[in-house]
Amino acid sequence: MNSVRVNLGSRSYDIALTSGDSKSVGAFVRAGLPKTTTALVVGDSNTQLHGRVLETALIASGFRTAFAPVPAGEPSKCLEQLSALYDALYGLAADRQTCVVAVGGGVIGDLAGFAAATYNRGLPLVMVPTSLLAMVDSSVGGKTGINHPKGKNLIGAFHQPAGVWIDLALLTTLPEREYLSGLAEVVKYGVILDSDFFSYLEANTRAVRERQPEVLLHVVGRCCRLKADVVEKDEYETTGLRAVLNYGHTFAHGFETLAGYGTLLHGEAVAIGMTCAATLAERLGLVGADFVSRQTDLLVALGLPTAPGHSYPTEELISVMRRDKKAVGGQMRFILPTRLGEVKLFDDVPEPLVRAVLQSH
Amino acid sequence: MNSVRVNLGSRSYDIALTSGDSKSVGAFVRAGLPKTTTALVVGDSNTQLHGRVLETALIASGFRTAFAPVPAGEPSKCLEQLSALYDALYGLAADRQTCVVAVGGGVIGDLAGFAAATYNRGLPLVMVPTSLLAMVDSSVGGKTGINHPKGKNLIGAFHQPAGVWIDLALLTTLPEREYLSGLAEVVKYGVILDSDFFSYLEANTRAVRERQPEVLLHVVGRCCRLKADVVEKDEYETTGLRAVLNYGHTFAHGFETLAGYGTLLHGEAVAIGMTCAATLAERLGLVGADFVSRQTDLLVALGLPTAPGHSYPTEELISVMRRDKKAVGGQMRFILPTRLGEVKLFDDVPEPLVRAVLQSH
Repeated sequence: MNSVRVNLGSRSYDIALTSGDSKSVGAFVRAGLPKTTTALVVGDSNTQLHGRVLETALIASGFRTAFAPVPAGEPSKCLEQLSALYDALYGLAADRQTCVVAVGGGVIGDLAGFAAATYNRGLPLVMVPTSLLAMVDSSVGGKTGINHPKGKNLIGAFHQPAGVWIDLALLTTLPEREYLSGLAEVVKYGVILDSDFFSYLEANTRAVRERQPEVLLHVVGRCCRLKADVVEKDEYETTGLRAVLNYGHTFAHGFETLAGYGTLLHGEAVAIGMTCAATLAERLGLVGADFVSRQTDLLVALGLPTAPGHSYPTEELISVMRRDKKAVGGQMRFILPTRLGEVKLFDDVPEPLVRAVLQSH
Repeated sequence: MNSVRVNLGSRSYDIALTSGDSKSVGAFVRAGLPKTTTALVVGDSNTQLHGRVLETALIASGFRTAFAPVPAGEPSKCLEQLSALYDALYGLAADRQTCVVAVGGGVIGDLAGFAAATYNRGLPLVMVPTSLLAMVDSSVGGKTGINHPKGKNLIGAFHQPAGVWIDLALLTTLPEREYLSGLAEVVKYGVILDSDFFSYLEANTRAVRERQPEVLLHVVGRCCRLKADVVEKDEYETTGLRAVLNYGHTFAHGFETLAGYGTLLHGEAVAIGMTCAATLAERLGLVGADFVSRQTDLLVALGLPTAPGHSYPTEELISVMRRDKKAVGGQMRFILPTRLGEVKLFDDVPEPLVRAVLQSH
């Protein structure tokens, strides 16, 4: 079994990279949590079947389990569904060792993760990401949370998982649009941290789109390692380093919010946001036009959008972006590329330039 | 100004012990949070006036502020009021540096603290405890949370404050029953950690009940120091050491839950719970009858109850106690005295003995 170790002292954990080996999940959870006797498996209508398979494996390893179904979709990242998970934990007579197993994409991971972070002031959490986006991004690093009616992920906590169980076989049945959306975050890692990986993606666009198993293993493993490197150096996003992962995300949150959640998939919004960020960097003279076109070409080759496809009022976008979590004192902050494989935080970007970029897309 | 330092590495902070010097709170907050520009002051109908005074002081120190009123009482430790605080933070355009200032007793501290712990994945928090109970217990140590309909404090997070501002002058106007209730936790510190402090209380019951300023300063300062010592050694309640602070609390939660929140004040329930725990320790042969009577005499001299004053069904009490956060795998765990100034964790107490103690009170 391949695995990636996330080194965070007493909060260290393994990301297991497996394929079609669900029965081993029991031993994996048991190894990380020797004292745990109960587990709450959380899934939605898309992941319920897989969740039941995992539940069986957990029972075989001696855990007492229950399954908590959550409606599929972003609206479930809300206080009501959180409250339902608290009820399910209470129903299971959860103690401080009870494990929450989040089986799903980012929504399930964020919601179940936040329930784990806050029930009994913190329960162990095992992430079982079922989407590409969740495998390479949201399941690693300890960010959990729900949405506020006015803003995405406004409510949340840092809570590292006790382990992450990735089953790459799940990627083969993922709907095309959802799979492609996940590739936006994959490209992001190349742009912000690893130009060799970016080149690898350029050279393998067809194999990536065909979801060839050995390519998936390399792509997902590399993204997990790159994310783990960043998280190890800035677990709580205090030094600014972890902020590099938010490349394209300030713009993306603006588009996502104005489009209404669900219209644009997160990765699609990130692809558009990365294009905006690259354009902004070019106008600031940080990178040349070649950088922008190279990034755009790869995104397009991977079937991703690079423009919103709809005109949103610039002032409303700016207003949402100013309230982004990364903003401080109403001042927008941007992660911008300085060359392929390197980005920096800029908190003094002239607002007229931001407006101009928004109007050009 | 007297102060107590809580040493927790990057999460260290000061507890300021002041008297009638509210205008200095601005400088105190500013010193701890140099980058903060906005502050949300949270209070209830009992603390609103004091909150407004503090708000004025914060404005004078250059903070932009808003006041969020919360209904007084334990029922406010719920998802609805939490949600209202999230709305207030959004309305203030809170960023990651925005400070939440909790002005009140345990309810306000726990609720506003949990909002601070979870908005934008964590905002700085300043505790301004206005009750004796909050000064010596809930405002120090980083526990925040709300109630689940089925259990007290089931939902929460560890989130250390950036500072604690104690104004001892507030104690002089506290209603008698509420003041006495706080003394239960004061006695607890003597029993679990400091026999000299216990003797000091025995020698000064009258001065304590008369709320003499120099006695209050010593009592509150000593309790904060004792609690800080424990929290410094076991911040996240993982080694078992911090659990000593829960002396009497397993029983207390049983009585509080069955009485219905608000019937028994928390400190009253703790005084009864401590008496049960002492009786249990005596029956286990851990302490002699003299220990029980000495603790009972001090509690009584300080105007506290040592029996529930109402008969609750033993099985229902047991059922609630089994679901206590400290329980593991349905096994009740008790903090019991071994001598004055020392307690230990016992997880193998025979249940018939617990029943017998409950039936004897």
